[in-house]
Amino acid sequence: MSDVIRIEKLKRTAMVSIYGGVAYVAGMCGTKDDPIRDQVRVALEKVDRWLASAGTDKSRILSATVWLSKLEHFDAMNEVWEAWIDPENPPSRATGIAAPAGEGLDVEVIVSAAVA
Amino acid sequence: MSDVIRIEKLKRTAMVSIYGGVAYVAGMCGTKDDPIRDQVRVALEKVDRWLASAGTDKSRILSATVWLSKLEHFDAMNEVWEAWIDPENPPSRATGIAAPAGEGLDVEVIVSAAVA
Amino acid sequence: MSDVIRIEKLKRTAMVSIYGGVAYVAGMCGTKDDPIRDQVRVALEKVDRWLASAGTDKSRILSATVWLSKLEHFDAMNEVWEAWIDPENPPSRATGIAAPAGEGLDVEVIVSAAVA
Repeated sequence: MSDVIRIEKLKRTAMVSIYGGVAYVAGMCGTKDDPIRDQVRVALEKVDRWLASAGTDKSRILSATVWLSKLEHFDAMNEVWEAWIDPENPPSRATGIAAPAGEGLDVEVIVSAAVA
Repeated sequence: MSDVIRIEKLKRTAMVSIYGGVAYVAGMCGTKDDPIRDQVRVALEKVDRWLASAGTDKSRILSATVWLSKLEHFDAMNEVWEAWIDPENPPSRATGIAAPAGEGLDVEVIVSAAVA
Repeated sequence: MSDVIRIEKLKRTAMVSIYGGVAYVAGMCGTKDDPIRDQVRVALEKVDRWLASAGTDKSRILSATVWLSKLEHFDAMNEVWEAWIDPENPPSRATGIAAPAGEGLDVEVIVSAAVA
């Protein structure tokens, strides 16, 4: 039985769980009540940081789920998203209208990425 | 480091990302403002098409997430879903009430599938 | 081509699908109209049961998604969640406000876990 590696164990979540060559990153949000573009930017910076901690990066994301509190934020999110992703390696993405679990949070990004 | 394979790279998403024997398909929707059954049918046809492009099919789906804009669409979605899946190989599914990111879109289907 | 293993095939979903050393569990809910803590407890008991059927347990969960019908349920869900998880092995988690697909259902939990 090979072990699951946990990075940054908190009381509710590990920031990253690694197994079978795949890193599963916890849902990342921005700073509450910030403008949507800033929230997306901060969420993606956190994703970058946790992917780096697992020895990988955004060019190796397998699947990404984006939750937005309102459809109105879709264009702004996409603008930041498109500037952020590796154009040679866009992740498979799904975007749904589902608020993150916190007042004033408008975006959450959940990714898994190849590590091996 | 083995490569992640990307099928149909668009500016926001790859339609499929393949790694470690698993294909991760982007969220698929139907045609906006169509009746719910037609939207589900078209979303599932797109899933079929992208699974085929990855050399696999619906009998090998591992996990499926279905987002519906309204609980009222649940029975109609299930009717089309049950006629579509391989009864010998039903995927593990979760269904939530979360609208896809587009006006008039009532269903989004997100799957991963075995390819090897 | 190695097979996908299906545990408890129902007409819409398999309760668990296993492939490549990972078990994908269908979305689990509690009993409708129960208080939120009871719903979370029952959903997590079901997760435990299906993980056991796949030869694994909560200490090996890779990623967990929690859907809540209302943000108001967040603290109660966390209370039950924190008592449930293996503190040495917290799963990577994301929580979103998206109702499960049933009247009176307030929480749905979706996990994948290492089995090999």
